[in-house]
Amino acid sequence: MKDIFFTPGPSELFFTVEDHIKNGFKNNIYSISHRSSEFKIIYEECINRLKSFLRIPQGYHIAFLSSTNEIWERIIQNLIEEESGHCINGAFSKKFYDFAILNKINATAYNYKNQEYKINEIANSHELLAITLNETSTGIMCDGDTIRKIRSKIDSLIALDCVSGIPSLPFNINDVDTFYFSVQKCFGLPSGLGVWVYNDKCLDKHNKLKEKKNTGTYHSLHKLHEMSQKFQTPETPNVLSIYLLSKVLNDMMKIGIENIIRDTNYKSSLLYNTINKHESFSPYINDKNIQSKTVIISNCKKESDYYIDILKNKRLIIGKGYGKVKNQIRIANFPTHSKEVFELLCDEITHIK
Amino acid sequence: MKDIFFTPGPSELFFTVEDHIKNGFKNNIYSISHRSSEFKIIYEECINRLKSFLRIPQGYHIAFLSSTNEIWERIIQNLIEEESGHCINGAFSKKFYDFAILNKINATAYNYKNQEYKINEIANSHELLAITLNETSTGIMCDGDTIRKIRSKIDSLIALDCVSGIPSLPFNINDVDTFYFSVQKCFGLPSGLGVWVYNDKCLDKHNKLKEKKNTGTYHSLHKLHEMSQKFQTPETPNVLSIYLLSKVLNDMMKIGIENIIRDTNYKSSLLYNTINKHESFSPYINDKNIQSKTVIISNCKKESDYYIDILKNKRLIIGKGYGKVKNQIRIANFPTHSKEVFELLCDEITHIK
Repeated sequence: MKDIFFTPGPSELFFTVEDHIKNGFKNNIYSISHRSSEFKIIYEECINRLKSFLRIPQGYHIAFLSSTNEIWERIIQNLIEEESGHCINGAFSKKFYDFAILNKINATAYNYKNQEYKINEIANSHELLAITLNETSTGIMCDGDTIRKIRSKIDSLIALDCVSGIPSLPFNINDVDTFYFSVQKCFGLPSGLGVWVYNDKCLDKHNKLKEKKNTGTYHSLHKLHEMSQKFQTPETPNVLSIYLLSKVLNDMMKIGIENIIRDTNYKSSLLYNTINKHESFSPYINDKNIQSKTVIISNCKKESDYYIDILKNKRLIIGKGYGKVKNQIRIANFPTHSKEVFELLCDEITHIK
Repeated sequence: MKDIFFTPGPSELFFTVEDHIKNGFKNNIYSISHRSSEFKIIYEECINRLKSFLRIPQGYHIAFLSSTNEIWERIIQNLIEEESGHCINGAFSKKFYDFAILNKINATAYNYKNQEYKINEIANSHELLAITLNETSTGIMCDGDTIRKIRSKIDSLIALDCVSGIPSLPFNINDVDTFYFSVQKCFGLPSGLGVWVYNDKCLDKHNKLKEKKNTGTYHSLHKLHEMSQKFQTPETPNVLSIYLLSKVLNDMMKIGIENIIRDTNYKSSLLYNTINKHESFSPYINDKNIQSKTVIISNCKKESDYYIDILKNKRLIIGKGYGKVKNQIRIANFPTHSKEVFELLCDEITHIK
């Protein structure tokens, strides 16, 4: 048996990735020009599959960047003039806020440590409100109902961080104006590609803004959008990653997004049950409404290395707590993790003394 | 026989890349955390090999970004306060200048269309002077002597674009303060990684600047430098590409940089001789001092598609002229192209009617 990675990203590769990479060599995908018709076909196919698989409505568009860190910076440059609001429930939502501050944006932080967003506290005056579908650092999820409630209360642009949530955690895309993710989480790909989805309202805002401030160069939103309409990127992109994403989307479409969501729910229930029953473990997040289904975090009696090493000996690789936290483990529940390997993992956790 | 790509990037992969990618799967490289000790070892090894192979002197440092377009933007944000000088001899050096203008930099263009840099024209008052080792769009090379002469005349920071030049075209690194390249040219890797080398003088300049202006967020130079000292990146990087670069550097070190340079000279002489003798072709750049050895451009009597298709039928894939140019072909001469395949290519070109 080989190692199975349950780390929260980079993680276990989607099980078809190795074959797709090999086929890419046969078909010269990594040598073709990014200005060639062959590349444009790969690009268009990837965009069409994203739109179809994620059911992206009309009026929403897609651009490829290199990471979510980059997308945070581009959102700040391209969609915010003076101020923004940030619902913060972990290190990554905090980092987006920090980026805004570094960019001299008058950003407001709404801090929700281990609790639901308090929608009534959020001002309706922000240019853009940043929320998070799944906080990878703390394992806090925001469900579709909450996002809908925010949409009904808030008139500003809404940006949803979907890094470790999409496509496993459902939400209504019409409830947000922009969302984004990177491919090394639920899509099970090598890291190095960020996907940015934005709607016409974002484009309108950007087109007004670009007359007033510096919105960047090759990756300013209008440049990304202009090139994207031609199935191209402004720079030489990570062709390998766009190619692999398209192939994995095709595989996931065959499985079906409903089945992926259903299996995510089953596997997360199994793991939370296992943790709840075990005397050495307890869920870090107690409120079941916000317990993440894709990044499950447990407190543990001993230091995390003890448990990580026991499972590593069984070739099951789990993650440690985020940052300097010592008594936590983090376990990813992504589409590539089958029910069978999750049952195996839960069995092994149950037997830990 | 499979297709052989002589396109000027993305191009033919270095001949060891497929095996290295496969080994990466065996060793779980694409699943490991970018904060793990395993990744830090890969990072450190790659940095050490770059320093050793390219003979990077003390006081120079290395950071990984996603493309040369990004490095242009970061240089402008991080090393230029008000103004810069740009020696322009093609579309890419022009693009760097355009990026500076978009960033409200008072940039000066020195235009040298198909001719050597006129060093005496260049002002010695720039904060940073941008020059190009090899212009991929026009096939114009700048040799080490010229760079040395510029260094001896100019006190400002000197930035050298090495995209399609390094490691095949030699220059003295001490003659520049920063240089950069992307890996899909001479290193024969899939696209999606830029390498930025900068010296202590750049760091000093940046550290003063960062108090005065917005130098970016996750990829500001001090953040990149701080993380690089810990063999890490600020964001989840393109781990696959850093891993492959390290492996290919190791292969190139076994061949030796002198042998790579010598073979580059041999192959380029062969191709220029072939072009000069053929009645349908003539070199686009006539001045031998600036004729590129790595991206050879030829004018041709008929439209380029005619010649491209003939060679494609022989499974030899060459490039068309840059942008909208119709009567030009571009041929890459990179380290992965053996003398044997170059002899084959020249034979086939000779026989074109």
